[in-house]
Amino acid sequence: MRLIIEPIVRVALLEDLGRAGDITTDAIVPEDTSVEAVIATRQPGIVAGLDAALLAFELIDPTLRIERCCRDGVRVSRGEKVARIAGRARGVLSAERTALNLLSRMSGIATATRALADAIAGTKAKIVCTRKTTPGLRVLEKEAVRHGGGANHRFGLDDAMLIKDNHIALAGGVRPALERARQCAGHLVKVELEVDTLDQLADALEIGIDAVLLDNMTPETMRRAVAMVDGRAITEASGRINLETAPAVAATGVDLISCGWITHSAPILDLGLDIA
Amino acid sequence: MRLIIEPIVRVALLEDLGRAGDITTDAIVPEDTSVEAVIATRQPGIVAGLDAALLAFELIDPTLRIERCCRDGVRVSRGEKVARIAGRARGVLSAERTALNLLSRMSGIATATRALADAIAGTKAKIVCTRKTTPGLRVLEKEAVRHGGGANHRFGLDDAMLIKDNHIALAGGVRPALERARQCAGHLVKVELEVDTLDQLADALEIGIDAVLLDNMTPETMRRAVAMVDGRAITEASGRINLETAPAVAATGVDLISCGWITHSAPILDLGLDIA
Amino acid sequence: MRLIIEPIVRVALLEDLGRAGDITTDAIVPEDTSVEAVIATRQPGIVAGLDAALLAFELIDPTLRIERCCRDGVRVSRGEKVARIAGRARGVLSAERTALNLLSRMSGIATATRALADAIAGTKAKIVCTRKTTPGLRVLEKEAVRHGGGANHRFGLDDAMLIKDNHIALAGGVRPALERARQCAGHLVKVELEVDTLDQLADALEIGIDAVLLDNMTPETMRRAVAMVDGRAITEASGRINLETAPAVAATGVDLISCGWITHSAPILDLGLDIA
Amino acid sequence: MRLIIEPIVRVALLEDLGRAGDITTDAIVPEDTSVEAVIATRQPGIVAGLDAALLAFELIDPTLRIERCCRDGVRVSRGEKVARIAGRARGVLSAERTALNLLSRMSGIATATRALADAIAGTKAKIVCTRKTTPGLRVLEKEAVRHGGGANHRFGLDDAMLIKDNHIALAGGVRPALERARQCAGHLVKVELEVDTLDQLADALEIGIDAVLLDNMTPETMRRAVAMVDGRAITEASGRINLETAPAVAATGVDLISCGWITHSAPILDLGLDIA
Amino acid sequence: MRLIIEPIVRVALLEDLGRAGDITTDAIVPEDTSVEAVIATRQPGIVAGLDAALLAFELIDPTLRIERCCRDGVRVSRGEKVARIAGRARGVLSAERTALNLLSRMSGIATATRALADAIAGTKAKIVCTRKTTPGLRVLEKEAVRHGGGANHRFGLDDAMLIKDNHIALAGGVRPALERARQCAGHLVKVELEVDTLDQLADALEIGIDAVLLDNMTPETMRRAVAMVDGRAITEASGRINLETAPAVAATGVDLISCGWITHSAPILDLGLDIA
Amino acid sequence: MRLIIEPIVRVALLEDLGRAGDITTDAIVPEDTSVEAVIATRQPGIVAGLDAALLAFELIDPTLRIERCCRDGVRVSRGEKVARIAGRARGVLSAERTALNLLSRMSGIATATRALADAIAGTKAKIVCTRKTTPGLRVLEKEAVRHGGGANHRFGLDDAMLIKDNHIALAGGVRPALERARQCAGHLVKVELEVDTLDQLADALEIGIDAVLLDNMTPETMRRAVAMVDGRAITEASGRINLETAPAVAATGVDLISCGWITHSAPILDLGLDIA
Repeated sequence: MRLIIEPIVRVALLEDLGRAGDITTDAIVPEDTSVEAVIATRQPGIVAGLDAALLAFELIDPTLRIERCCRDGVRVSRGEKVARIAGRARGVLSAERTALNLLSRMSGIATATRALADAIAGTKAKIVCTRKTTPGLRVLEKEAVRHGGGANHRFGLDDAMLIKDNHIALAGGVRPALERARQCAGHLVKVELEVDTLDQLADALEIGIDAVLLDNMTPETMRRAVAMVDGRAITEASGRINLETAPAVAATGVDLISCGWITHSAPILDLGLDIA
Repeated sequence: MRLIIEPIVRVALLEDLGRAGDITTDAIVPEDTSVEAVIATRQPGIVAGLDAALLAFELIDPTLRIERCCRDGVRVSRGEKVARIAGRARGVLSAERTALNLLSRMSGIATATRALADAIAGTKAKIVCTRKTTPGLRVLEKEAVRHGGGANHRFGLDDAMLIKDNHIALAGGVRPALERARQCAGHLVKVELEVDTLDQLADALEIGIDAVLLDNMTPETMRRAVAMVDGRAITEASGRINLETAPAVAATGVDLISCGWITHSAPILDLGLDIA
Repeated sequence: MRLIIEPIVRVALLEDLGRAGDITTDAIVPEDTSVEAVIATRQPGIVAGLDAALLAFELIDPTLRIERCCRDGVRVSRGEKVARIAGRARGVLSAERTALNLLSRMSGIATATRALADAIAGTKAKIVCTRKTTPGLRVLEKEAVRHGGGANHRFGLDDAMLIKDNHIALAGGVRPALERARQCAGHLVKVELEVDTLDQLADALEIGIDAVLLDNMTPETMRRAVAMVDGRAITEASGRINLETAPAVAATGVDLISCGWITHSAPILDLGLDIA
Repeated sequence: MRLIIEPIVRVALLEDLGRAGDITTDAIVPEDTSVEAVIATRQPGIVAGLDAALLAFELIDPTLRIERCCRDGVRVSRGEKVARIAGRARGVLSAERTALNLLSRMSGIATATRALADAIAGTKAKIVCTRKTTPGLRVLEKEAVRHGGGANHRFGLDDAMLIKDNHIALAGGVRPALERARQCAGHLVKVELEVDTLDQLADALEIGIDAVLLDNMTPETMRRAVAMVDGRAITEASGRINLETAPAVAATGVDLISCGWITHSAPILDLGLDIA
Repeated sequence: MRLIIEPIVRVALLEDLGRAGDITTDAIVPEDTSVEAVIATRQPGIVAGLDAALLAFELIDPTLRIERCCRDGVRVSRGEKVARIAGRARGVLSAERTALNLLSRMSGIATATRALADAIAGTKAKIVCTRKTTPGLRVLEKEAVRHGGGANHRFGLDDAMLIKDNHIALAGGVRPALERARQCAGHLVKVELEVDTLDQLADALEIGIDAVLLDNMTPETMRRAVAMVDGRAITEASGRINLETAPAVAATGVDLISCGWITHSAPILDLGLDIA
Repeated sequence: MRLIIEPIVRVALLEDLGRAGDITTDAIVPEDTSVEAVIATRQPGIVAGLDAALLAFELIDPTLRIERCCRDGVRVSRGEKVARIAGRARGVLSAERTALNLLSRMSGIATATRALADAIAGTKAKIVCTRKTTPGLRVLEKEAVRHGGGANHRFGLDDAMLIKDNHIALAGGVRPALERARQCAGHLVKVELEVDTLDQLADALEIGIDAVLLDNMTPETMRRAVAMVDGRAITEASGRINLETAPAVAATGVDLISCGWITHSAPILDLGLDIA
């Protein structure tokens, strides 16, 4: 939604324009020169972040004519056109880097998510992201994960409860932690618990829990955990998830596999702007 | 400088806290519980981003006692302590993720930069970053590059002129582009020109130029370019730079090697917060 | 949490100070005059909003000494002291109205909530608020509801799904609406459905639902709805809830009774500032 | 004026949308579904706040077609149409609550003001509001008071001087307080003095004053005060003003009757959005 | 008041620091180098703007020790010390220009105002400023005028009514303009009317008016206007006021002489920072 | 660029509108009254700031029709039309003062710069501005300098290094200062050194430097300095530059003459708005 992403794009543009703006373009390119430009992929992948990227051009120059050649979430091959921008050359060149920075990062996240999702295709498991996102860009990155075929975890500290090891330790155990959580949680707030052992899991199931995060368990233990849960809670696996480890984890029968890598360390998808 | 980074950290915290704040911690951890926490590495690398990361704790709870165990730019081994935070547990837990997101991303950039710098050690070349940074975090990422042993390119479109292929094309050649640039550039503004061919380089040198960006040249062509320049301009190589290709590029005698990868695609450095 | 409420209090103060500040106080009261002031109730009720109200004094003059005489959520009688502020008179007088506006509004909400909660004491039902809050003050008002013994509903459009009559109509029925919701909802997002008839309720229970909002039903129908649900979902009653109607609604066995009145129409609790 | 109210509406919308936006509507309602919606009253009253309410729809989706069926300040009966909004259903539903929260609160203030103004019709007195407004919404609430037939008092601490009991006490009496005020007040700044006794009033009239606030006087004393003033200053009554007490106060001959209740405690006017 | 001026100073500092901060000082001056600096005048005048100027140092580095050697409004000779700042050299140097820009501009305004006020000493007239202030700095400039011995006119379009020639023309004359103004003005809003002729003045006095602006009249006409007013309104002269013309204008008996020059065209007072 | 100047104009407008807006115009001028207005000069000079000034009208009322009669940088005579604005009278009157404040200040700067530039016409020297600009308006003022025929110095502390006397003193001499600067400066950052003596200049030239600031030298010494530099660095003169002194300074052969007066003390160019 534009109301939410516009402040992000505006900050990004102003960060690049600084005080004096694009002094190279303003010096060299006449005000009335027009161009037709194309944003195209330099490698195959999944596109995401188009709304934000194209908004960069619109904010720089509202008279630019912008046309999308594909939608977010689509798989593109190398050299495929993603969008066309036509109009005054100055605006196109001044917005180019900011637009590409947004688009290539989000597309990189979508592409990484898609690869992981494909690696576990055929199982019931789904890939979910974490809160290990780029500061300031969480909304865009969560959306890129969805376009890559993943699902979203919490958007922040306030929209669900996730009781972690430190919470359990400070509360003096799973039981008191869970009881305090239940007491405070609104009726539309779900509660998830990180469990490191099957004993903790047994406690949690006895009290009742919406979801359990099975952290850093071996596939073997995880399988037993899934069996113990037996559909009474959503099961989420986490810890050292990558393309190699994911299939074995998915095979344990967990509902979700969460992965920080897709947002904090995925390489960008290479995209460029070409002037016709 | 705090005046510059505080708005970034504040936005990052508020993005995570949302409207209701850390509902898990507030429900489970009593207001007067104190902890001693340690931020430690989970893998070796170079630390960067400490100012921003520790500011997250201070902004959440100014009564927290914060102690640095190392400085930005230092090489750390696996398990090494980076900082200590002591005080009210609620503040420590609520700021944890934002602080680690900032610290691990900047340390990842510093670590990647360091690796690239080490790969070309012994040559006269230096690694420089680009404008392919994370939207909103450019200041922090440029600093991380310096802590990794790299140097900074332009901070934005306004602090130096970089004449690229599209500018040259729209101006009708290297010569008119350079002349218009010279006419507009203030006396403290340097001008760099992207050259794809040795002919373009010859034109640029004839007119006079502060720096030339040798884009996507073979090592052989690059060597000839460096010879042509003969110290009359700074030479910068760019295009597909990585740990494998960098040494050969450095061996051509260029002054600088610019690399987008270190800011747009470097994996994070894994760091965690442990409660004693 | 201060990071969240400070912007609200700052806007409120600047709205009152305008450009020239408190011209009356600055003209009449010498800069070095000190006072001891007391905030006291003018009528009995429940206190809420102390953090925000006292922050107004701190933001105007950080040297003021502020002491709380009670905590949010406490029942106070007429004339009871709530807080003491001592220091420079100018700051006390300039912050007074903003502080009282915040405190009396939040205390009014807590008092109204408490009255409603008391009216249904002895039943299993709890009072919950709605999104019918004052624009800009939702975080403070939700907290005031908790201090009045109520619980919180959604904080916004993004932290849970509430499928209303218009959604059902546009989706073509309860079933397609619920299915689309289930498909998009993250695993930590609860889904609540507004039902106007027992047929809709039957559909919802068949598909599975976290909570149902029983809107504008007669106590008789509501009782049958609660029986149909039989613990498989949280039940929430809404529509024309007030001190007279609440007991009969609570007697139907619903889990929650939501009420917009406590945030959109509760009168303030009268509080004043007295200088010793 | 839009420049002034847009930031208020924007904050209100973002408070409701949070990070992820309207997840219910986005999941259930297709992007291209169109609706025609009507905002209508659920009870009789005076409409106010239309500019702000309709701006909420425009900011969410600028393509929505918005038509006003009445103007602010008009008396409406139960079920009367206030505005029509047509276009994409998603925007209509996502802006609905914010728009109604603004409209129903401002209409509630206008309705309460109108009732009080009607209660003193036939006298020379006018109803005026106070600074006891909702933090952040003062501009809108002052306008709603005008639409209800009331007049505005100061907009803040900076646009007129109002010397209150505490100022008098700290200055050492009415005389020194007034003299200091006169010395500092610009030539376009009016000075009003709160008087509790006729002696204070006599002092004020001797020195000269623009307006006097007769606080918490009996009608008998107030009548004598009005006689003493004899047109040399504007007279304003305050203290425990409501529908029952206002006529007697107005009958004393005062020019103005100020009332905090109309802004801090008026119940909202019930309005709803119906989809055709 | 700090709450009001801090945003102005913060914007000014960030405008100067840009993205990378003070790169010269950071490169050359070690972090732990301390200095003692003095802000001193380079020419005689009146000091103003000290709060804002010294806040620049505090915002850059809160550990700096700041001591005032004089107060705003004081007449200083050439070479006189205005303030002392001691502590880390980096902060002193980085804030220097912003602080001096604020201080020298405000002191220039105070000095110009003082000169004009001195030129009419012995008459009853006072110098007042206009709304012809620097965009963004009005609050500081209005204060500087007071420190120079002048008084303030309106702070903006909203705190008093000033009916100008265009208003009169569009209303169809002085009489309808004044009547509409009276009808809308709150009881604490003064109304001033710009009159170009004695006929207009007669109309205004007949209806009643708080102040009249005698615009561009000859001293002779102005004298007659003052006589006509005879104390029934405040009289303000405007139009081509400077050190030469002011005494004759003051001699006409007007109460106020307004002058745009003191805020829009006064040269700065030269001040510098010296390191001991 | 609009993205950069809009926040400045918005702050300026809101500063003038305050909370209640233009109460005079709203009271007197009917909503549907239209006017044709002309902005015209009251004295000859150079126009600058048109973008910002006309944006004020557009932000107040986007339906106003705005037509430029000249471009920034053009020399205008007395009474010449600069722009036409037609449409609703209210918007024209409410934006008038803010627009004129911006336009007359920037035109004043351009006019002063032009005069200084004309005074040294025929020499090779160019006029440059300094960082002694109005806090918050630097971008606009730097542009006005260019429209007056001057060139821009640094935009802030971060886009070039300027080593001043205090830096040299704290570093222990020209040599260590320059070496530290060279070590830290990015390859696109120029370094300028302020020199007070020819000995310092000799040191700087030996190490190598992009530009030297010859501060407060006599013409005789400056001439010798220019001869010593002999084209190896840009030479800039500063100190007590005005219309009388500039020609002699320019005659020394320096490349640039920097002058703070044109931004900090230039009188405005008188412009007014006339309604047809």
